[in-house]
Amino acid sequence: MDLLGSDALEGETLRPARVVESMRYAALAGGKRLRPFLVVESARLFGASGQGVFRAAAAMEFVHCYSLVHDDLPAMDDDELRRGQPTTHRKFDEATAILAGDALLTYAFDVLADEPTSADPAVRVELVKVLARAAGLGGMVGGQFLDLEAEGRFADTGRPLDLTDTEILRLQAMKTGALLLASVEMGAILGGADAGQRAALATYGRTLGQAFQIADDLLDEEADAAVVGKATGKDAAKGKGTLVRLWGKEAARARLAQLVSEADAALAGFGERAEVLRAAAHFVANRDR
Amino acid sequence: MDLLGSDALEGETLRPARVVESMRYAALAGGKRLRPFLVVESARLFGASGQGVFRAAAAMEFVHCYSLVHDDLPAMDDDELRRGQPTTHRKFDEATAILAGDALLTYAFDVLADEPTSADPAVRVELVKVLARAAGLGGMVGGQFLDLEAEGRFADTGRPLDLTDTEILRLQAMKTGALLLASVEMGAILGGADAGQRAALATYGRTLGQAFQIADDLLDEEADAAVVGKATGKDAAKGKGTLVRLWGKEAARARLAQLVSEADAALAGFGERAEVLRAAAHFVANRDR
Repeated sequence: MDLLGSDALEGETLRPARVVESMRYAALAGGKRLRPFLVVESARLFGASGQGVFRAAAAMEFVHCYSLVHDDLPAMDDDELRRGQPTTHRKFDEATAILAGDALLTYAFDVLADEPTSADPAVRVELVKVLARAAGLGGMVGGQFLDLEAEGRFADTGRPLDLTDTEILRLQAMKTGALLLASVEMGAILGGADAGQRAALATYGRTLGQAFQIADDLLDEEADAAVVGKATGKDAAKGKGTLVRLWGKEAARARLAQLVSEADAALAGFGERAEVLRAAAHFVANRDR
Repeated sequence: MDLLGSDALEGETLRPARVVESMRYAALAGGKRLRPFLVVESARLFGASGQGVFRAAAAMEFVHCYSLVHDDLPAMDDDELRRGQPTTHRKFDEATAILAGDALLTYAFDVLADEPTSADPAVRVELVKVLARAAGLGGMVGGQFLDLEAEGRFADTGRPLDLTDTEILRLQAMKTGALLLASVEMGAILGGADAGQRAALATYGRTLGQAFQIADDLLDEEADAAVVGKATGKDAAKGKGTLVRLWGKEAARARLAQLVSEADAALAGFGERAEVLRAAAHFVANRDR
């Protein structure tokens, strides 16, 4: 099954080749696939797998990729490189990138709401709700607004803000944490987790999200663009407040190690089945790209 | 109930004021409210009304308004005026307009998927599916791609296309028709319509969509920007193919009258309850803005 293949995307209406081509370019050009991995592995804790889990994982990745396409636009971060390749608006043009992002976001909800995702409409609608919340103004999009505001990017609101660490944590919990948390929550929904299991997974997801962001900020400070596959040193260039810049690298690394322990601990109740998710927390903290 | 009010939009996470302000600006600055009207009136045919219908109607309008915000962007139609007011990217800036559109689209699915829309998850997920299909690559976004392609706006694909009337009809059925059709379908879903009733309403919706577009193209040829509230004469300036330009104004007006009769006929089975929807078809065909 290929949700971005011609079988899935061609119907009775005309689909301009450019839509499909740009959506595929934006969504299939590589990347770590961390979010779909989290959906799949969280569902697997409860023995759930198969088409429904795959579809939910794909929908999550579509939303992540749409956000990257829009984030990279000239009016936003104005990035030319993503995963070592030209960003979507550089490969095509701005109009195509805007619409490809819109199409990916919309298609994600189509995929979740459609019958093959689950025979139970209550499961499907819960998946839609969790994803819409995480991607919306109280989550990712709200975090992107805050981020631009913090960078002083809005002409009418002025210069960069000096955020406290509490404010940075809140911004990051929205901008990048919300989708990571939603990924494990969607796995829990597909797996029929009980309230305690869902809460434990949510703790794991939130902790992982913080670790991911600190690792990302460390990479931005230290790494080589050729290895990371996107521009680095951007935070410092913008005078952007990150925990790494606020605390220093050593303290940030110590906090990162602590978060990995907390993520481990949150999974204690799942025993050996959670080994892959534990390894993921270590991977996220120690990745070089 | 105000779905774009501070009660609805403020939660435990920080919501930057700019998100809410730009979403309200984009969605509440006037307009005909044709799509939510169609949701409400279609539901009313079956005696359905109240909070669920209102929420579905609002979600539909959010999707329509997001599409206008993105369509107006410099990289797309580059419009400065919408409903007689500065477009969202002129009032704020491009980054805000991109994100406000993203937020409105995402929020629409959040509103539909949430419990107050219907106690029945099967109804909620069906509403999500119908809206996602209509707004996605086989509907509105696909139509926007085709429209830009037809205008020769993609640098790498070249000059404007000479579309046949069949191709124009297909493009318009996607770009503007799909949401109008989805509006009556959502009303039918909320009202618990049977298959025959749903098919009759769909015929009405499709016919209304065609009438709407011909009336729009006539307005673009004939009307005064000050009355319409947005730039006019744009199609001719772009060398854009419309049915009006292909057939001539008189033949287009004749087809418009025929479509109104067909819309009337599609509602025959609903008797007097459908009087408002019949009047809507006449309004759409004869509007001056």
